[in-house]
Amino acid sequence: MNDDATIESLRDRLRDFAVARDWGQFHKPKNLAMALAGEVGELLAEMQWLTDEQVHEKLADADTRNEVEEEFADVFLYLIQLADVCGVDLIQAAHAKITRNDDRFPPSQSVF
Amino acid sequence: MNDDATIESLRDRLRDFAVARDWGQFHKPKNLAMALAGEVGELLAEMQWLTDEQVHEKLADADTRNEVEEEFADVFLYLIQLADVCGVDLIQAAHAKITRNDDRFPPSQSVF
Amino acid sequence: MNDDATIESLRDRLRDFAVARDWGQFHKPKNLAMALAGEVGELLAEMQWLTDEQVHEKLADADTRNEVEEEFADVFLYLIQLADVCGVDLIQAAHAKITRNDDRFPPSQSVF
Amino acid sequence: MNDDATIESLRDRLRDFAVARDWGQFHKPKNLAMALAGEVGELLAEMQWLTDEQVHEKLADADTRNEVEEEFADVFLYLIQLADVCGVDLIQAAHAKITRNDDRFPPSQSVF
Repeated sequence: MNDDATIESLRDRLRDFAVARDWGQFHKPKNLAMALAGEVGELLAEMQWLTDEQVHEKLADADTRNEVEEEFADVFLYLIQLADVCGVDLIQAAHAKITRNDDRFPPSQSVF
Repeated sequence: MNDDATIESLRDRLRDFAVARDWGQFHKPKNLAMALAGEVGELLAEMQWLTDEQVHEKLADADTRNEVEEEFADVFLYLIQLADVCGVDLIQAAHAKITRNDDRFPPSQSVF
Repeated sequence: MNDDATIESLRDRLRDFAVARDWGQFHKPKNLAMALAGEVGELLAEMQWLTDEQVHEKLADADTRNEVEEEFADVFLYLIQLADVCGVDLIQAAHAKITRNDDRFPPSQSVF
Repeated sequence: MNDDATIESLRDRLRDFAVARDWGQFHKPKNLAMALAGEVGELLAEMQWLTDEQVHEKLADADTRNEVEEEFADVFLYLIQLADVCGVDLIQAAHAKITRNDDRFPPSQSVF
């Protein structure tokens, strides 16, 4: 697997990016959490007036797809930075949560 | 690198999880985007009345740390599922965005 | 018009509520903004797996309607408190924005 | 009390605004809930890199204050529209919630 394919590679680029601009002073947990919520809001705004079918059409067109991908990227990048300042391993936390959910929601039961 | 350390390993577990419960019917872009926003809200709720110092104290205690990590996991898991149904490669989109930001915000300039 | 029907009547009750519990110390702009985002997340969570028709059915049943109304209330109450600490008159700001939007989006033009 | 000072006056202007542009077709619960989350994200973005003191300075300057007020207005206007399509009386729901919270959080007890 290529090293670029890891979250760590993104985390490291983001650390360098922040250091080069002296932005580390702003990267406190609450600030980054607010920025994350802001970017999620922008991702939702890409879809809010569309049907799910229209979302897929937007993703099938290279130009409009790019706008949506940028919003995904912004959400992911702030999530990585927030996890970084909080010392949270996203991949490990996510695996642990799926394992817990496997217990909480047995496949044989209807939960709705 | 261990295969478990990839986003794909999480995506695949989430796909299996949804298939086993017949939840795929709910996993449309807008539903997942709303779920993502909901989980980000829960992550913010973990920090909203705390100072940044208190957030770090919460993360330093194993019990309370676990609550925060679960919220990180929930956000990440919905982001992965939303990206999956939208056919977006999070890692690639994120690298592309950092590269673009490198151009938009030259280190030598003040942006504030 | 009944005095209870005003935003000011809610604002005043919220001020008294916070004073009685010494919560004013937590009611800073960023904290309240995060709490607002958290409650909006909970409101979205009430609807995320439903169709719009099912949302209306949920609202037509007294028990489930109550859950949704509570989330609306929570969002509104934090919005009022955030506006209060920021010294923003919500009604006046909203009227001004509608007037601006009337200019920005003339009815005769298609904007989509 | 002036009629313009009511939420109903805003609701009615928003209804007229939507009718004049044939936007009612987009104003379904889930779409409006996403729009609300999007605008809350923009409101948070106004504050995310600032300290609470800097938020107050931003509000003390007429130009920058205006930007913040517009975001407050956008949040409030979507909240009113979402409540309208859901048939929820915001003022009444908010009073009911404060009354409930008075019971849940007795002033004499510490809740933290």
